[in-house]
Amino acid sequence: MPDPSRSMPDPLRIMRRCEELARHSELSGGLTRVFLSPESRAANDAVLGWMREAGMQALLDPIGNVVGRFEGEGPGLPCLMLGSHLDTVRDAGKYDGMLGVISAIECVDFLDKQKTRLPFAIEVVGFGDEEGVRFGTTMLGSRALAGTLEQGELEVKDAQGVSIAEALRAFGLDPARIGEARRRKERVLAYAELHIEQGPVLENEGLPVGVVTAINGFSRLRVTLSGTAGHAGTVPMNLRRDALAAAAECVLAVEEIAKSDAELVATVGRIEARPGAINVIPGRVVFTVDVRAPKDELRLSAVSSISRQIEKLARVRAIDCRIEALQELGVAACAPWLTAQMERAVAAEGIKLRRLPSGAGHDGMALKHLAAIAMLFVRCKGGVSHNPAESITPEDAGAGARVLLRFIENFQPPVRGDPE
Amino acid sequence: MPDPSRSMPDPLRIMRRCEELARHSELSGGLTRVFLSPESRAANDAVLGWMREAGMQALLDPIGNVVGRFEGEGPGLPCLMLGSHLDTVRDAGKYDGMLGVISAIECVDFLDKQKTRLPFAIEVVGFGDEEGVRFGTTMLGSRALAGTLEQGELEVKDAQGVSIAEALRAFGLDPARIGEARRRKERVLAYAELHIEQGPVLENEGLPVGVVTAINGFSRLRVTLSGTAGHAGTVPMNLRRDALAAAAECVLAVEEIAKSDAELVATVGRIEARPGAINVIPGRVVFTVDVRAPKDELRLSAVSSISRQIEKLARVRAIDCRIEALQELGVAACAPWLTAQMERAVAAEGIKLRRLPSGAGHDGMALKHLAAIAMLFVRCKGGVSHNPAESITPEDAGAGARVLLRFIENFQPPVRGDPE
Repeated sequence: MPDPSRSMPDPLRIMRRCEELARHSELSGGLTRVFLSPESRAANDAVLGWMREAGMQALLDPIGNVVGRFEGEGPGLPCLMLGSHLDTVRDAGKYDGMLGVISAIECVDFLDKQKTRLPFAIEVVGFGDEEGVRFGTTMLGSRALAGTLEQGELEVKDAQGVSIAEALRAFGLDPARIGEARRRKERVLAYAELHIEQGPVLENEGLPVGVVTAINGFSRLRVTLSGTAGHAGTVPMNLRRDALAAAAECVLAVEEIAKSDAELVATVGRIEARPGAINVIPGRVVFTVDVRAPKDELRLSAVSSISRQIEKLARVRAIDCRIEALQELGVAACAPWLTAQMERAVAAEGIKLRRLPSGAGHDGMALKHLAAIAMLFVRCKGGVSHNPAESITPEDAGAGARVLLRFIENFQPPVRGDPE
Repeated sequence: MPDPSRSMPDPLRIMRRCEELARHSELSGGLTRVFLSPESRAANDAVLGWMREAGMQALLDPIGNVVGRFEGEGPGLPCLMLGSHLDTVRDAGKYDGMLGVISAIECVDFLDKQKTRLPFAIEVVGFGDEEGVRFGTTMLGSRALAGTLEQGELEVKDAQGVSIAEALRAFGLDPARIGEARRRKERVLAYAELHIEQGPVLENEGLPVGVVTAINGFSRLRVTLSGTAGHAGTVPMNLRRDALAAAAECVLAVEEIAKSDAELVATVGRIEARPGAINVIPGRVVFTVDVRAPKDELRLSAVSSISRQIEKLARVRAIDCRIEALQELGVAACAPWLTAQMERAVAAEGIKLRRLPSGAGHDGMALKHLAAIAMLFVRCKGGVSHNPAESITPEDAGAGARVLLRFIENFQPPVRGDPE
């Protein structure tokens, strides 16, 4: 049960600050804020101000992350790292990313006002790039911290032909120094991130928060089915090699295989039938498959089942079939010892525990190379995200911040030798 | 069995003339010839010349059809009308339309050289517009003959903003006189057309020709399915309202219903899934359905089954569904008494009789309002049409012309009071 006597982080201030950050947008009447843009500088400045008000030393790191440090019982202790990202997709919502940064600052502010110092430092990071909208490469900020960002990647250019290196310089940063953003493992005890769910599970179960088990890995395929185009009026059904009818069976097979395990999802998001005329039998169909799961073996086994089933369905119809692997990323498991601490914080708030995987990508996928990771999801309306309709309630923002605060207050670093 | 003692229409000249006409094209290295174009004038001139060589009086009628008349035993007798169209689709084949005109001229030429006169006149018409490529309105030539072309339609414009009326004037014709193209029913005993099949049935059965039972009617639908778009990674399978998965079931239902009757065909030719991103569950899918059958009640019953089934499938998935009727045209049945004569001609050539419906549209759909219609199909390679790969053999062209000649020679006009 929540402890009503205890004063709490202020949910209304969290909501207000999300609104304030949303004003820093290249899009008037909407929210778009990409890495190293003038709007991102304004957002960074606001966040730096709030960090300092919360008793943190705050600055921009060499890759453009906003970093606030709240010292522990003594100066220079290894830190518990908290945070999320400050960049957005195009025509974004106000909470994806920002809520995690602002909630963490709110928790530190609470500790600061209570004059609480912990046996570890806290660092709150507002990552400059997670979405990858500007340069098409995601998690530049967290990868710099984890030391997995290659210097050569700084030559990647945006749509205007500006490289990351040039953009860093224009922002007043020195691309030659991004190596200095890298953290040493022994200085970061763990990383925890609060984020909106971006899915409907918590809403569906009537829960304000849930604990993430893993950030799902994904596999992406492109399937090309080639049959024979023909006149829709002149080719009898039994002489057709209709690529779209074959694709329809494949779409349903993808769905069927994904339904075989509650942790698995698979999606056909794009489909194109050619020649695409009302009176022509489709001769060629190209579609994509996106498969995700919190366990790599589950995902890889599903990809294999889907591929075999597509090949089989095509063969039965004498349709030629080509399956290409487009992209693949393994799962980023949340650390059980750390997640157990997050779960205890949820229980202490009297909230029923719901464990769930994260279907979307997060900075933890990069930071797992630096430290153990954990994530707390906050319910969002209708599961809608990457959309101006993204919405959360102050009550849920409050529940998220309280759980995060309890997690921080009770955080126990791993004993050396603990399995991660 | 064919009568080897009998001299025959010349298949090689038919093939050669198809090649010659194909040179009159706006597209070099391909064939595109639209209504009232400079190329169509050149093609008309060639056809008028061949008609005159075959003993016909030949001229351009007020709508731009090439008309050749071969008098019967006495002058001014009612005619048996033969023909097909001289316009093409874009990047067309050489036989669709032209083969019917050239074969009919070849038959008349044979009669003329044999000094045969029949108890009826023969008219061969090369229709100026059947495909409707230039003005988007089909069968302008045959509709003018049937009297179903409205004067107001002459204001329809092509892509360059030129109206049919203006194009007629530029061609040296008088749009005010198109009413004069109309024929009186008592002057046209019947209409028979030889045409390539544009489908694979005859090839599949190893037959050079087949007799058409009807030009199929068609119904066209547009179906819009609306579910909920969502992140491909974050929405569990059981909480999805995936419009594409629903559409896949509908595509297969369309196929299934069409397979329930050998005379029925149904095609989903266009499909669009939105937003159409690899990592987004499709929230909205629009697809088309084209249904054809040689009997209207069969087609209408199939459309009704398809619509009900789509609505049911959508309902099960809680997907919103809208079905719009786009276009509908009833069947043009070939006249049994006339078709019986064509079948006797096929039998007389020793060819196994194959009756088949025409899935594609033809001038007979317009001319049925003027006279009883019959059609003879000639096998084409792979069923391919509307394509430079359209191909027939001289042997099949010869078989088609011989059957047509026998049909003409033995043609018996209907006795007044005969059922059509």
